[in-house]
Amino acid sequence: MTAQKRIYEFGNGKAEGNAGMKALLGGKGANLAEMAGMGLPVPPGFTITTQTCADWYDAGNRMPEGLMDGVRAAVAGVEAQLGRQFGGARPLLFSVRSGAAASMPGMMDTVLNLGLNAQTVEALATETGNPRFAWDSYRRFITMYADVVSGVERKLFEHEFNAAKKRAGVTRDSDLTADQLKQVCAAMKVVYLKQEHEEFPQDPWTQLERAVEAVFRSWNNMRAIEYRRLNRIHGLLGTAVNIQAMVFGNLNEESGTGVGFTRDPSTGENEFFCDVLFNAQGEDVVAGLRTPEHLDALKQRMPEVHAQLMQARQTLEQHYRDMQDIEFTIQDGKLYLLQTRNGKRTARAALRIALALVDEKLLTREQALLKIDASSLNQLLHPMFDPKAKVQVIASGIPASPGAAKGAAVFTPDEAERRAARGQSVILVREETSPEDIKGMAAAAGILTARGGRTSHAAVVARQMGKTCVAGCSSIHIDEHAGIFQAGAITVRQGDAISLNGATGEVMLGDVPTVPPELSGDFRTVMQWSDELRRLGVRANADVPRDALKAREFGAEGIGLCRTEHMFFDSDRINKMREMILAKTLEQKQHALAKLLPMQRADFLGLFAAMDGLPVTIRLLDPPLHEFLPQDPSTQQIIADQLDVSLKTVQDTVANLHELNPMLGLRGCRLGIEQPLIYDMQVQAIIEAMLEAEQQGVRVLAEIMIPLVGTIEELRWLRRRIEEQLNQFNLHHGSRLAPKIGTMIEVPRAALTADKIATEADFFSFGTNDLTQMTLGVSRDDAEKGFLIDYVVRGIFPTDPFATLDREGVGKLVDMGVKLGRGVKPGLKVGICGEHGGDPESIEFCHEVGMDYVSCSPFRVPIARLAAAQAAIKHGKA
Amino acid sequence: MTAQKRIYEFGNGKAEGNAGMKALLGGKGANLAEMAGMGLPVPPGFTITTQTCADWYDAGNRMPEGLMDGVRAAVAGVEAQLGRQFGGARPLLFSVRSGAAASMPGMMDTVLNLGLNAQTVEALATETGNPRFAWDSYRRFITMYADVVSGVERKLFEHEFNAAKKRAGVTRDSDLTADQLKQVCAAMKVVYLKQEHEEFPQDPWTQLERAVEAVFRSWNNMRAIEYRRLNRIHGLLGTAVNIQAMVFGNLNEESGTGVGFTRDPSTGENEFFCDVLFNAQGEDVVAGLRTPEHLDALKQRMPEVHAQLMQARQTLEQHYRDMQDIEFTIQDGKLYLLQTRNGKRTARAALRIALALVDEKLLTREQALLKIDASSLNQLLHPMFDPKAKVQVIASGIPASPGAAKGAAVFTPDEAERRAARGQSVILVREETSPEDIKGMAAAAGILTARGGRTSHAAVVARQMGKTCVAGCSSIHIDEHAGIFQAGAITVRQGDAISLNGATGEVMLGDVPTVPPELSGDFRTVMQWSDELRRLGVRANADVPRDALKAREFGAEGIGLCRTEHMFFDSDRINKMREMILAKTLEQKQHALAKLLPMQRADFLGLFAAMDGLPVTIRLLDPPLHEFLPQDPSTQQIIADQLDVSLKTVQDTVANLHELNPMLGLRGCRLGIEQPLIYDMQVQAIIEAMLEAEQQGVRVLAEIMIPLVGTIEELRWLRRRIEEQLNQFNLHHGSRLAPKIGTMIEVPRAALTADKIATEADFFSFGTNDLTQMTLGVSRDDAEKGFLIDYVVRGIFPTDPFATLDREGVGKLVDMGVKLGRGVKPGLKVGICGEHGGDPESIEFCHEVGMDYVSCSPFRVPIARLAAAQAAIKHGKA
Repeated sequence: MTAQKRIYEFGNGKAEGNAGMKALLGGKGANLAEMAGMGLPVPPGFTITTQTCADWYDAGNRMPEGLMDGVRAAVAGVEAQLGRQFGGARPLLFSVRSGAAASMPGMMDTVLNLGLNAQTVEALATETGNPRFAWDSYRRFITMYADVVSGVERKLFEHEFNAAKKRAGVTRDSDLTADQLKQVCAAMKVVYLKQEHEEFPQDPWTQLERAVEAVFRSWNNMRAIEYRRLNRIHGLLGTAVNIQAMVFGNLNEESGTGVGFTRDPSTGENEFFCDVLFNAQGEDVVAGLRTPEHLDALKQRMPEVHAQLMQARQTLEQHYRDMQDIEFTIQDGKLYLLQTRNGKRTARAALRIALALVDEKLLTREQALLKIDASSLNQLLHPMFDPKAKVQVIASGIPASPGAAKGAAVFTPDEAERRAARGQSVILVREETSPEDIKGMAAAAGILTARGGRTSHAAVVARQMGKTCVAGCSSIHIDEHAGIFQAGAITVRQGDAISLNGATGEVMLGDVPTVPPELSGDFRTVMQWSDELRRLGVRANADVPRDALKAREFGAEGIGLCRTEHMFFDSDRINKMREMILAKTLEQKQHALAKLLPMQRADFLGLFAAMDGLPVTIRLLDPPLHEFLPQDPSTQQIIADQLDVSLKTVQDTVANLHELNPMLGLRGCRLGIEQPLIYDMQVQAIIEAMLEAEQQGVRVLAEIMIPLVGTIEELRWLRRRIEEQLNQFNLHHGSRLAPKIGTMIEVPRAALTADKIATEADFFSFGTNDLTQMTLGVSRDDAEKGFLIDYVVRGIFPTDPFATLDREGVGKLVDMGVKLGRGVKPGLKVGICGEHGGDPESIEFCHEVGMDYVSCSPFRVPIARLAAAQAAIKHGKA
Repeated sequence: MTAQKRIYEFGNGKAEGNAGMKALLGGKGANLAEMAGMGLPVPPGFTITTQTCADWYDAGNRMPEGLMDGVRAAVAGVEAQLGRQFGGARPLLFSVRSGAAASMPGMMDTVLNLGLNAQTVEALATETGNPRFAWDSYRRFITMYADVVSGVERKLFEHEFNAAKKRAGVTRDSDLTADQLKQVCAAMKVVYLKQEHEEFPQDPWTQLERAVEAVFRSWNNMRAIEYRRLNRIHGLLGTAVNIQAMVFGNLNEESGTGVGFTRDPSTGENEFFCDVLFNAQGEDVVAGLRTPEHLDALKQRMPEVHAQLMQARQTLEQHYRDMQDIEFTIQDGKLYLLQTRNGKRTARAALRIALALVDEKLLTREQALLKIDASSLNQLLHPMFDPKAKVQVIASGIPASPGAAKGAAVFTPDEAERRAARGQSVILVREETSPEDIKGMAAAAGILTARGGRTSHAAVVARQMGKTCVAGCSSIHIDEHAGIFQAGAITVRQGDAISLNGATGEVMLGDVPTVPPELSGDFRTVMQWSDELRRLGVRANADVPRDALKAREFGAEGIGLCRTEHMFFDSDRINKMREMILAKTLEQKQHALAKLLPMQRADFLGLFAAMDGLPVTIRLLDPPLHEFLPQDPSTQQIIADQLDVSLKTVQDTVANLHELNPMLGLRGCRLGIEQPLIYDMQVQAIIEAMLEAEQQGVRVLAEIMIPLVGTIEELRWLRRRIEEQLNQFNLHHGSRLAPKIGTMIEVPRAALTADKIATEADFFSFGTNDLTQMTLGVSRDDAEKGFLIDYVVRGIFPTDPFATLDREGVGKLVDMGVKLGRGVKPGLKVGICGEHGGDPESIEFCHEVGMDYVSCSPFRVPIARLAAAQAAIKHGKA
């Protein structure tokens, strides 16, 4: 095995690394090398690779052989460049910082001024002629080192510092004298000894080695793991370590420190957005003890440095072709750049910047679109809480459906309906929701549940309705009868105002002000470019005309999934459905279904009208029948009374319909075959609505979709039956209705035998929710409250397979299904209608396997349009 | 489209078809052609193809164009050959019979003497000079035609016949005179007119066309569908129709009819097993009104015919190289063969005949093995009810586990144990069984349940234990408290003797005598030949030493699946398991597991000793934990008392463990990762037992198998943990234990990513039960009481996918898994341990995809050995 290169040096206008080496050097290290290579003023230093971090873990937290020798050589290089010595008479000090390939802000800490000890602090004082500065630097070093490397509580050291200020009768840090600071350092060393049972380390090499190991260790602290999980960061080796010569913003009044965005990160406007603090180190900015000054102050005090900074801003933007987030230090009137990276921004700013960079000829349209995080567009479509508002967060749950909702807390669907009818905005708070709650949910501005994950009933229905939802908020305790919930010490009573942030999962007390969404000209431009560049069609999942119209407004090119069962859950219909289920004779069943027929027909008519000229895919009934019956005896009694049957009939039916694994049970096309009257009614409603719509001048492109097909025989049987019904209808009405008849591909066997199934299908639509459940053998509802989260945390699943399609497993089946289907029917239209249809990574996959369209919830349509364009840009349009 | 050939003629020493054309001509038609071609005396005729039947259905029950023209031409050919006329003065009569590619005895009916009417019956009387014969033939024809073609109840006609006999004061059919028979015919025609509102058809062509359609129609009558379902006959086009000139066994005393087996179908001995009835038609034999005579009678009465028949027997056996089941008719001293086919036989006879044919040099060993139905060997391994015994069948359920069991009916597991302890044989009768019943089941000779299918708890456990089980016997009504069950009018009380036939599902009253199994020399020879010829290894699924020893006795070459959870269900252990599950602290959990450790160690030690020198694959805990806790409050209270916890603790735990779809939930390796202490204990027990066994001189080949793996990360994590535990153990004991560590492939994703998973697996074992559930999206337990049976009946599933592996879907995944796994690890050992491992068709598939072994329940080991040899013979050994 050849010794691998673990250390990459930079400085003096040269660098061994560059910006393309983020995986190995981390983002910070790669950009430091890039800037050094560009000739920008960067203090010299070196980066230990991310691979070294991985090796350190693999070796059981042991330093790879030879690493410290390499570090010594690299330190010698910096010493030679600067004419200083690490631990010597002209002391060289280092900053030690972590830096992974993905930005993980605040995840790991930094140690500054490393190399100071009893000797070097004196040498620094002598050299600079500023003992106050030297001792202040030592004070800072001891605090950071103890905290970050040794894990001693920071507040113990801050306590000593504050005590000294109190004794001296001063409030500002800078008012302490050198001698007072020296005493503070001495006191801090005593604290360290007491806590660690050893002297504060004096040997600079010991300091350095331990600091490097602390950075490695920080990669797997709880905070870092949680951050990666929440941000879906996976597949990284570890963190790099950046060791860089210190420059001092706190040396004197000609020194300072600053951070800035090269454009406004909120609006994207082309303004340098920059804060400067004079005579200070970076941590002082973060600590917020002093108010930073603006660029104008710098221009006044150090016009030359200001000009350099403006030049650097331009150089960096031209070089990186993106808005940069930079850190800099001014030491004794000289500018040093300490970091640059692509700056985080709001969706609004992302659009503005991308378009501006195209105008400035720094980017092509294609490059510009790739710079925008498609998921972030979500922000633009919902009202947002005013970022300037002061809020009191009382609990936090799973961000299940985006948006900003606020209103009076209510605990029953009835109360929600009552108050909504009076025009009050309400938040429905439930342990979890069920079909009985639908009307209450529709009446509410937002839904908060104590149980259930992102695919719980509450979450799915809320997303469908476009309602804000925070689910699985397990820290709240609901007492429905008392009409209160507890969140820690706080009690929220019925009628109290609360606010839900569907993007973060936060539950806030009171009526937090919101700002409305603004679909700016930039948004329209980006959508227009996306539409020009993408190959994938984008449809929406919508069950009612209101959603369909919303989707069309957002640019949907059809409905990819209308879930007909949602039409049955309405409280004025569910009893007719129940009547059908409880019926004992065929006649009774037909009688009940006959009542549902005109309602379904009206639903479909509305959808066809809303989507005039665009395809509408209608999925026949999918869920098992037991979902329509209540499980609790009291509601069963109510149903029995309403439908004039015995309680025993209801209970016997519930018992009969009970399945051990309903997910794998009698539903979808199985129900369609075993109880054909239901599909007959639905098909009748569709074709009657088609005829009526056409008579009204609507152009109808209806597609009947059969769910849960596992074998060609199922599809063949149902297709024949539908065709027969259709033929009779056409014969009787002299019409020529010809809806397409296709199938979901959601059972693994359907994908495996897609060459057979395609012979009877006019189209395929991949139902990747169920396909994921069956391919992985994971019940989503169960797993999301159980092992699924843990699996993602442990990295067993790289990401939640219900949020982002599992390429390796499920994706293989999808790819196989597309290829087999098209193999026998080259023009076969193929789409996706699982929730993955709205996830950018999954959309990229759909593009790669050659699907024709994706279908997603209305609010994700713009995301899908952009993501589809990004996929086409990356992989070519064909 | 070229006109297809729909009609194949035979007769006069020539034939258009042959025995190889069964798919098109049906078995009967193909063999008639073959015999005609061989020059055997076969009445001339023709066969309408099975494809025509399919076309008839496809055309909506309409005769294909030109078919009847073809029939007229073929009839003309027969007329020419025989010098007779259909409907003419020397009347030609036909038999019309169905005949599918697979034998479906009694499925469809036959019409004899077709062509008779008011004119031809007189012509026949004149020609034969035997009016009694002519009118008797007409009487038979009317009855058969009315029944088979027109669907008029047969008994209406029999009633007329019997009334006539009564009037005439005779008892034997043949005692009625021609005139009396003529009156019977007239009366029958009146019945026909009354029932059908039309005259009995007089036009022979109408008779013929309608008879052909009746045969087509009979293909899809309920009886035929059910027969095909039960016998797993699928993929056939339809039935052929055989139209053949009548010969008359009832012409005179030099005439007769007979059926026979060329060897004894019970024992296989080389004796012509033949019944003859003089002056009779074939239906008289079946009706059983007259006692047939033996071959000796024929030899005495018609020595020449006897010699011809003996010659025909030899010719047929030499030609078909198998025992034949023949039908013949003697008309006026001349022998005609009407049918030949390979005869059905008992397993014992199958072995005897196959071996004899090898001795007689008619077959090679390979050909001989292919003649044996591997599944039938089951008969030889269990005691059988004496076929000579008179029995009273009181109910019939699903034959869930083979064997013949008898004993006192008991209704509780406790009572079963009590009586068994006193040496009494008992049958445990339950609504359905649960883990609580295990000891009672073990104590019983057989298990009878009113609910549940072939994979219910009762069925699975019974098969595992080798107990006879009849499940899902829904016609019995159990009153556990009263200690009785009702079967129709019969009440069986506790202690009453009943007998269960696990091969047929019959429940019989009383103590039916049995005969013990006899593993004859033939059986040993067949097994020896099989072992020489097969490539696949055969292992057994066994959890306890008793089963392991049984399996070894039957020739198992190792244990392919030891289900460790079964060890926890024993009543003296389940509470320790429960203690572990209910524990609130890690210490309590460890404490409970520590009690289970020595028990598991002893289990494994026993298995290793039983399988000395052979591999033993131990699967770590697979089921979800909720299976160990009772659901009903009263048992929960008992548990709470026994374990000294609150009822609430038990109920909270049950609620916590509840899953909507436990099949896709927290079980298998997921549990191993989320609650690692359980697997730790099991691994500890395995390696301690390995060491102890080796110290006792046992050669241990242990294989640790991890269930439900879906991603490489799961396997990697668990493998690391096991290896670490193993290393520490070896270090501590100075041992060098190295069990193999492999995985089940039972989640579709595992098969799809088998190239990844193989990198961490020493072996693969396909768990095709779960793989089938997930690939098809079918919950077996739910579906078997629901749509699964209906799907098989409708042909949506060609066969029960849990009995015979679904090649097209699941098989594709298995094949992919094997190839991907071997692609990265060429020598990877691959087996199967689902129930398919004991099914001959599935075993053939396992051979084809190149598996190393199959594993099945002990009693199926001999079946698997033979099936493996048959697969190697068909497909080559490599």
